Amino acid sequence: MKEIAKYGMMEISLPRTSQTQEIIPEATFTLGNQRVRVRGFSENEDRGRVRFMPMAEGEWRYEMTWGEEKTQGAFLCAPAACHGPVRAEGCHFRYDDGARFLPIGTTCYAWIHQEEQVIADTLKTLEAAPFNKLRMCIFPKSMMYNQNDPAFYPFEKNAAGGWDVSKPDPRYWTHLDGCLQALERLGVEADIILFHPYDRWGFSQMAQRDNLAYLDYAVRRLSAYHHVWWALSNEYEFSFKKTLADWDQFGELIAREDPYHHLISAHNWITPYPKRPWLTHVSYQGANPRDAFQIRVEYELPVLVDEIGYEGDIEPFWGSLSGFEFMHRVWTATAFGCYAAHGETFHREDEVLWWSKGGKLYGQAPARLLFLKEILESLPGPMEPSCLGVVQDPNGLFDSANPFILNILKNTNEKGQKKILEEQTLPIGVHPDYKLIYQERAARSLMTLQLPQNGKYRVEIIDIWEMTRKLSAENVHGEIRVGLPGKEGIALLITRLSGDPLN
Amino acid sequence: MKEIAKYGMMEISLPRTSQTQEIIPEATFTLGNQRVRVRGFSENEDRGRVRFMPMAEGEWRYEMTWGEEKTQGAFLCAPAACHGPVRAEGCHFRYDDGARFLPIGTTCYAWIHQEEQVIADTLKTLEAAPFNKLRMCIFPKSMMYNQNDPAFYPFEKNAAGGWDVSKPDPRYWTHLDGCLQALERLGVEADIILFHPYDRWGFSQMAQRDNLAYLDYAVRRLSAYHHVWWALSNEYEFSFKKTLADWDQFGELIAREDPYHHLISAHNWITPYPKRPWLTHVSYQGANPRDAFQIRVEYELPVLVDEIGYEGDIEPFWGSLSGFEFMHRVWTATAFGCYAAHGETFHREDEVLWWSKGGKLYGQAPARLLFLKEILESLPGPMEPSCLGVVQDPNGLFDSANPFILNILKNTNEKGQKKILEEQTLPIGVHPDYKLIYQERAARSLMTLQLPQNGKYRVEIIDIWEMTRKLSAENVHGEIRVGLPGKEGIALLITRLSGDPLN
Repeated sequence: MKEIAKYGMMEISLPRTSQTQEIIPEATFTLGNQRVRVRGFSENEDRGRVRFMPMAEGEWRYEMTWGEEKTQGAFLCAPAACHGPVRAEGCHFRYDDGARFLPIGTTCYAWIHQEEQVIADTLKTLEAAPFNKLRMCIFPKSMMYNQNDPAFYPFEKNAAGGWDVSKPDPRYWTHLDGCLQALERLGVEADIILFHPYDRWGFSQMAQRDNLAYLDYAVRRLSAYHHVWWALSNEYEFSFKKTLADWDQFGELIAREDPYHHLISAHNWITPYPKRPWLTHVSYQGANPRDAFQIRVEYELPVLVDEIGYEGDIEPFWGSLSGFEFMHRVWTATAFGCYAAHGETFHREDEVLWWSKGGKLYGQAPARLLFLKEILESLPGPMEPSCLGVVQDPNGLFDSANPFILNILKNTNEKGQKKILEEQTLPIGVHPDYKLIYQERAARSLMTLQLPQNGKYRVEIIDIWEMTRKLSAENVHGEIRVGLPGKEGIALLITRLSGDPLN
Repeated sequence: MKEIAKYGMMEISLPRTSQTQEIIPEATFTLGNQRVRVRGFSENEDRGRVRFMPMAEGEWRYEMTWGEEKTQGAFLCAPAACHGPVRAEGCHFRYDDGARFLPIGTTCYAWIHQEEQVIADTLKTLEAAPFNKLRMCIFPKSMMYNQNDPAFYPFEKNAAGGWDVSKPDPRYWTHLDGCLQALERLGVEADIILFHPYDRWGFSQMAQRDNLAYLDYAVRRLSAYHHVWWALSNEYEFSFKKTLADWDQFGELIAREDPYHHLISAHNWITPYPKRPWLTHVSYQGANPRDAFQIRVEYELPVLVDEIGYEGDIEPFWGSLSGFEFMHRVWTATAFGCYAAHGETFHREDEVLWWSKGGKLYGQAPARLLFLKEILESLPGPMEPSCLGVVQDPNGLFDSANPFILNILKNTNEKGQKKILEEQTLPIGVHPDYKLIYQERAARSLMTLQLPQNGKYRVEIIDIWEMTRKLSAENVHGEIRVGLPGKEGIALLITRLSGDPLN
């Protein structure tokens, strides 16, 4: 009996007949009282195929029908070789098997559309890099540094020269399968961008009927990959052809048709996509981690700052961050309880920039993301933001019993409150067992900490750029003064050794 | 005949008699058809004095009366030895004689309240520093690093232990006169803060009647200094005892009683003081130069960012800026057409920190402020902000004829518009003869410039930290590409050699 690991992919098929031409193949998989109906795909291929991801061990039985064609059989679902699909839990993530997923994402929008050598370079780079999630587009990308055409397109053209979404090009989709399988082997989640505006071929201009047909096909074909995430958009507001109602239809279709309930997001240009029942997390574009923090508070969902700006030196504002500025933003987002993703845009005459085409990395951020990842992995659980910050109050003016200050805070308008958040707070992530205080660009030489009186705590000083983690104080409690190196990019990590929790 | 330079100070007096006890001395100064009535001061002193600043050359005559006491005389007003009081002009400043005033301010709140040696150090430091304006308080300061008491207080105490504003302490005011005269010799404008909240002696708690009496005295005593500016407040919202109506009374009193119409501001904590007829400029506290820019647009007044944060390493967020971060903010404010002031807060065990007590400077900013000052002085006039910025638009999406993009921009809410301003614009100051493009923290290796076709222009690259100014291109026009060093803190200075203006 065929053996498939839990979260692996079982594919079954039937040969095409004239009668099955316009019918979608389907199958039912059963294990005990579990019964999963799955739709497959056949468009433009010589077999009808159904893919299934078993999420429980044991002997699964299946029946597949395609018009009047039928087949049935069984396979053994063996213990998992991976952790399964990633799920949102609160404002964080876990794999389906309960293991923590700490996203260290990156972006190579059009890596699958490049020449073989570049694709091979990308995979080799990913193998050595800290990333466990990759944003990537189904459709090719047209933009600065993206003048080349791909070898294959997702669909064949119709007689009028437009895209015939009923005729997926098997070469394209087979290639995509290969790319997804390569990511799977590397343990990298594939955050698949289904629509994006940077287009010169017409994919962003298709009719909504065609959009939905394409999406339905993609879901039938790709859902059974455990590591697939559905990213409806890159910059939904920039896809001028589509309305919010169109985007909602996409989200609703996937939520309805994906049997495994993979994560679904809709990435913005300026304004975060509105909260929807099908939205599992926020894929946010924005340079300011405090905005991400506010969205987290509002949406009560995980916030991935998938575009916080890229390490690089090209002309656009989003692609010219120094390595330090990039890492500074990442740590700020992290201590606000969000997750920021990487991208790299160093100018190259060959136009192979990581952010879009993949290839190689040249920056200083990846090593420092690994350092961050190792610190996060060393912590017993995710942090929640504690935006009390550090308002210095030498004269007790902020005493909350002070009616004047209460009055000021009450009367400060939204602009003023935003200013207080921007200037007078620090990103502080808390957990019962630890507290991470990221000092941002402040170059303090000292800081006073109010630790619980009842307990013993350790204080470490992290230099986010030099990648050092040094013990500052051990077995301390109550009010202590910590010496700091008086430079930008310093974090304090306080760990509970015993006693009262830190959150 | 006594000779006083134009903008100098003529002081006349009469001896006290029992009859003049509660009367304010007055004088009339005449030159041709100019006739200036001036009120003097006598409180708690043995003579009644009237101070006068002549603003025109020639033989002035005067008559002074104090009750039934009278004196008269004449003096010759000789050519000026300085440029006179600073005036607001548009969003910039000029001296009374028309010379440009480019404020490079600093802050030593309580310098006059320190020991003689510290005061001497302060003056010595100022002599070698680039500053031409100093924020300083009348009242002593109580705060972290400010635990010492001054030698003198502005008033004597009454029987109940409160301050008797009808009895100024001549020792205090004579000391203040000496300090102001020392600043005058150094060419430093004295931006006098009349009220502030950091107080443990009761000056911030006085009744409004007493506030007005004190203010009236200060105006009568100090107005004749050409280099005096009136700063009503430090952080008006923090003076919980005072209402906005109280502050308005202060502004109205000064505007009415100061014969020379010195500059008047009211410095904020969070929210800028509302626009008022008597408000000559905005003394703004805020870390974000874009906020200052927006206030400039709204108020149509000069905006001095008098607290943009201080170079230092102490615990508060406002006192822990790296030298680079501080200079970065200053250049950003500058290219937005505003003026940012200096302050320094390096922790010292002797608690003599420049920001409050004066003394010595230890930071890296002053040399770089001098570099900025020299560049600004080399330019033919002040710049106006051109906040078009550099929105990269590789697919022409921002084409203003594009109805979709117009719709997006129209429908983007205030938060979205703020985000666009924050992320997608660059501070660019323009003048017919030059354009200053400050790249902020962007680490570009290249930039495309659209220069006028009709003309010849020079492009220089300024490194704000290394203090270099290098020629990049000469006699260029139209679209050119400029190589940049790929690091933070770079400015481009484009100069018109001939042809079309750059604004």
